[in-house]
Amino acid sequence: MSYKIALRSFKTLSYVGGYKKIRERHLKTHCAAVIGVGYMVYKQQQTNQAEMKEIMQFKNYMAEPITPVNQLEKNRDDMKTQMELMIMRIQAEFCRALEKEEDEAWLEEKRDEDLDYDSDLFVPYPDAKFRVDRWTRKEGGGGITCVLQDGRVFEKAGVNISVVSGKLPPAAAQQMRTRGKNFDGKELPFFAAGVSAVIHPRNPMVPTIHFNYRYFEVQDKNGVQWWFGGGTDLTPYYLNEEDAVHFHLTLKHACDAHDKSYYSRFKKWCDDYFTITHRGERRGVGGIFFDDVDQPDQQSAFSFVTSCAEAVIPSYIPLVQKHKDDPYGYHERQWQLLRRGRYVEFNLIYDRGTKFGLFTPEARYESILMSLPLNAKWEYMHEPTANSPEHKLMSVLKEPRDWLQLDQTHARTS
Amino acid sequence: MSYKIALRSFKTLSYVGGYKKIRERHLKTHCAAVIGVGYMVYKQQQTNQAEMKEIMQFKNYMAEPITPVNQLEKNRDDMKTQMELMIMRIQAEFCRALEKEEDEAWLEEKRDEDLDYDSDLFVPYPDAKFRVDRWTRKEGGGGITCVLQDGRVFEKAGVNISVVSGKLPPAAAQQMRTRGKNFDGKELPFFAAGVSAVIHPRNPMVPTIHFNYRYFEVQDKNGVQWWFGGGTDLTPYYLNEEDAVHFHLTLKHACDAHDKSYYSRFKKWCDDYFTITHRGERRGVGGIFFDDVDQPDQQSAFSFVTSCAEAVIPSYIPLVQKHKDDPYGYHERQWQLLRRGRYVEFNLIYDRGTKFGLFTPEARYESILMSLPLNAKWEYMHEPTANSPEHKLMSVLKEPRDWLQLDQTHARTS
Repeated sequence: MSYKIALRSFKTLSYVGGYKKIRERHLKTHCAAVIGVGYMVYKQQQTNQAEMKEIMQFKNYMAEPITPVNQLEKNRDDMKTQMELMIMRIQAEFCRALEKEEDEAWLEEKRDEDLDYDSDLFVPYPDAKFRVDRWTRKEGGGGITCVLQDGRVFEKAGVNISVVSGKLPPAAAQQMRTRGKNFDGKELPFFAAGVSAVIHPRNPMVPTIHFNYRYFEVQDKNGVQWWFGGGTDLTPYYLNEEDAVHFHLTLKHACDAHDKSYYSRFKKWCDDYFTITHRGERRGVGGIFFDDVDQPDQQSAFSFVTSCAEAVIPSYIPLVQKHKDDPYGYHERQWQLLRRGRYVEFNLIYDRGTKFGLFTPEARYESILMSLPLNAKWEYMHEPTANSPEHKLMSVLKEPRDWLQLDQTHARTS
Repeated sequence: MSYKIALRSFKTLSYVGGYKKIRERHLKTHCAAVIGVGYMVYKQQQTNQAEMKEIMQFKNYMAEPITPVNQLEKNRDDMKTQMELMIMRIQAEFCRALEKEEDEAWLEEKRDEDLDYDSDLFVPYPDAKFRVDRWTRKEGGGGITCVLQDGRVFEKAGVNISVVSGKLPPAAAQQMRTRGKNFDGKELPFFAAGVSAVIHPRNPMVPTIHFNYRYFEVQDKNGVQWWFGGGTDLTPYYLNEEDAVHFHLTLKHACDAHDKSYYSRFKKWCDDYFTITHRGERRGVGGIFFDDVDQPDQQSAFSFVTSCAEAVIPSYIPLVQKHKDDPYGYHERQWQLLRRGRYVEFNLIYDRGTKFGLFTPEARYESILMSLPLNAKWEYMHEPTANSPEHKLMSVLKEPRDWLQLDQTHARTS
């Protein structure tokens, strides 16, 4: 029994520690747990409180939380608080991970004394860091928009969180109703908190990534309806099958820990959603996408979404590190720009979030449109030559692939 | 009386002569008219027939007309035929006018022997001509898409005509109903013919122009409803007030010949339509825009639209000639690319024609999206510095101007 309690102490500590700094303290605290379990149970309560306080001090966040700190402290068990703290942490961890890549690229260059920096047009800023804009909206809530532009590794990287509340715009309510939500009443107070990011790297061999995780609450006459939505998807310019498998496998692991059926359902949903309909092609090699997740219970659903959000760094950063110094030339850059044009087409014509955002009165359009690339290109009737690497990508975009060969595995084992 | 007949002969000849080649013959024919009026009246019938035949031979059009020639000949008085021939002529005249600018730019360069062509990244093709794609659609009709890309003067120029028929897509019918059209019946056969063009020049001192003129027929239980729509508008990157006045004045002249109330009504409509709502700014300095014109009668409405379409060259080509060799640098190019990003935003998010086109099954998306610039840029939170030329443009985009000071003139004279 004492073993079980010790294990639980470990788990609780690993979980409650909301972010990085706390994580770095784990080893010490875990040792203490091994020394005396009884003492530990008592100590843990104190630690939890201390950790909660530390979270509230938001030292490592990109900016002060949107919700006032005393309100977060008061409602620490509320899902709204849990979600806000989770997306703040994800935003900070992801921004730091990207900045680390920029820093390393800068250090590498500094070491190489033969480089002629003046002639290198691709290095406009020596120390690219995220610009942080904390904004509020009249009707309630606000957000923190972090953008890194024209860096060495990332041409444009936007990581945004928003925590907003107010009355649901009629168009939004209508759109949710078509998805099967039954709201009773006209005035519908809502709360929404989410993190979303789009990273456009400079090197065409590094894919673009997008993710978004969100929590919704809508109050009608009958009470509060809540649900989670989100997804992570990858948009390569050149297909590297190994990368696609790594990406999908990381997402699958995150899903499998919660429900074995999730990955294949949400993978298909992603392929269906990120379609540039008029061109009959997908935006990229997919990932996962879901909406209206309200099962099996609120805490479990939150835990699933947290796992997905935490899977972003391990799914993506290794690909950046692997390819950021790959050689490329004018041809590859032109292809990357053309594909970025397609990205713009998807986001402005089809993406629900973008359209929705822009049609909301008083929307902060700069935060919504941070997803657009720094540069994009449209050529009339561009066709990749047969059997070229560009053509290879196109075939996958026209016919999504079962990256983890689940159907075959299933066929073999059944 | 003989004077009047001679004058009418002149007018008829100037009008019937569907396009350039015929125009070049005018002087000769007009001399004949002066020599003998009686002979002329007889001769004119023959000439008209010959000219009609010549039109049918479509030698100077960009491609063979969409409607079979024998059908055009049979229905030469039908508005469908008149419109198709008019847009074919406008397309050819405009494409030739743009090619002439390219040719001259090429000749100028050839004369200057000091130029180092190899290092000039902006001159990829020595002899830019329009690429011509004639296409047909399953349901009926087709189009001719002409695109000139990466030229010396024009970075991307698209001039498209389409002549289509079939059953009106339900979404289109719905959209027309919201505009006040009362269609009785479910199956609505329609015919639409139009010309549209977007020209993105290379030099940021030369504005972008867009125009579109179209004719619609919808048949319901009670008969045929028809109307014209269209407009021409200018999108400068740097404001030149003289240019804006010239542009608006040319359009006003075209309008005034038909209805003195048209210009000011359609100028306002243009300012209202070309609004990037989420940014609270216009796309450019406007021009004219109208829809549902079915007054005073079909032939007069056609004549008005023809005047507008014929005003495109005199409204725009002088601006190209004036500014195509203006000096500019990296800064001006970057601003042009940012504004092109806004152009993409308008076209993909708000433009009725683009959305409509893309959501129509079997749409030729390459023709619809030829309006997008070759290159565009999005910077997070870009703000022109106070009192800069960029800032000067922005104030006009935020507050449309009465370029011809009609309100003031009106105030003075009344």
